[in-house]
Amino acid sequence: MSNIKITIQYDGTNYHGWQIQPNRRTIQGELTRVLSLLAHHPVTIYGAGRTDAGVHAEGQVANFFTERDGDIQQLRDAINGNLDRDIRVVRAEPASDAFNARRSAIEKIYRYRICKDEVVSPFVYRYVYHYRARLDTDLMRLAASELIGTHDFTAFTVAHADTEDRVRTLTRLAVDESASEIAIIVAGGGFLRYMVRTIVGTLIDVGRGKRTAASVGETLLTRERSSAGPTAPACGLTLVRVDY
Amino acid sequence: MSNIKITIQYDGTNYHGWQIQPNRRTIQGELTRVLSLLAHHPVTIYGAGRTDAGVHAEGQVANFFTERDGDIQQLRDAINGNLDRDIRVVRAEPASDAFNARRSAIEKIYRYRICKDEVVSPFVYRYVYHYRARLDTDLMRLAASELIGTHDFTAFTVAHADTEDRVRTLTRLAVDESASEIAIIVAGGGFLRYMVRTIVGTLIDVGRGKRTAASVGETLLTRERSSAGPTAPACGLTLVRVDY
Repeated sequence: MSNIKITIQYDGTNYHGWQIQPNRRTIQGELTRVLSLLAHHPVTIYGAGRTDAGVHAEGQVANFFTERDGDIQQLRDAINGNLDRDIRVVRAEPASDAFNARRSAIEKIYRYRICKDEVVSPFVYRYVYHYRARLDTDLMRLAASELIGTHDFTAFTVAHADTEDRVRTLTRLAVDESASEIAIIVAGGGFLRYMVRTIVGTLIDVGRGKRTAASVGETLLTRERSSAGPTAPACGLTLVRVDY
Repeated sequence: MSNIKITIQYDGTNYHGWQIQPNRRTIQGELTRVLSLLAHHPVTIYGAGRTDAGVHAEGQVANFFTERDGDIQQLRDAINGNLDRDIRVVRAEPASDAFNARRSAIEKIYRYRICKDEVVSPFVYRYVYHYRARLDTDLMRLAASELIGTHDFTAFTVAHADTEDRVRTLTRLAVDESASEIAIIVAGGGFLRYMVRTIVGTLIDVGRGKRTAASVGETLLTRERSSAGPTAPACGLTLVRVDY
């Protein structure tokens, strides 16, 4: 059995997220179907991170074991030939048996795009959250600095989350502004469910003056979901890269 | 009656082109439906150029006369509110009564994108022609220089075209290459049916060594459609801008 690492891009608009589910079109489900078909045996796919319904990926990573031999670029092309055009395996490479896309990951980088234009272009609407009112990015950066580092992020995940350990480390939380967009870059070793989108929703609340930058640090201490801001819409979020 | 100039963007993937047709989803058809609805009277829309089925626009221009008064940005937002997200009116502005989007146009600029990557990203596949074999862009530029200027372009339009005068002026035909794409920029006062895509298909034939650069000038002289190259696929073509 060979362990194969694949790097995947997808437009998540028409998928119910990464994780395989019965009777729903998911990224892991599509890859499982195609890989099992090509390998002539059931294939289990391990993904670096579960993206939610509607979230996109420029560099999702997964691995799987297969008995199929042969040229790995031919395998990549065969997988792509059996997938819809909105999922692509952009790279396939051999990995050591110890490699696991989730457990071996050191850092994941996400980007959240907020479009400020009055009208959103038909070429980008799937990938941005349209927010026309003014956001004060200086205040958003100040609030972001409260979140960088190692904290208990209970307030920034779903209420009553199954995960017991909710301490995570944010290595980067940057707010980049251009004429038509605000991009929020979020990097860390791991994330709780909805954590990136709740951080973004809270920063937006700061940017529009609904809460102070200082209140964001206090929110961490409450460990109450209700003290954080809303979960920002999925469409604006993209998993940019997973580092190993 | 006020004359209104609108600038329109569209992802042409799911449309049967610009021109209104019965029982087919077209850009002009969608705009006619929405504008007539909002104006409470039938509205005729004049477009700068008819784009074919599957062709996109970043800056199509049209005009129409309406009895509706009121704020023009509100009109723009009302139009967009009644259109699917893959068509957007990005600008609406008052025009003089003499303005006609087609007749007043001085120059139209098109871009044709050829993707050279082994795998086409899910974020761009709708907007490029995927061509993996190597193309010699120096030869393509040499061939392009044969076409710039004023010529009878009969060989580069549909056989037995209705248009009697097939003399057109190409002001620019540039071949720009980056690591993953070749972009062919085509500018001129007016174009015959399929002319841009037939020019592109002929330049691709030169780039892949199927014909010489010099043969392209000779093709103009034959005035025979059969002596030009194939019509390149619609998806790679975008109407970038119309200048007045």
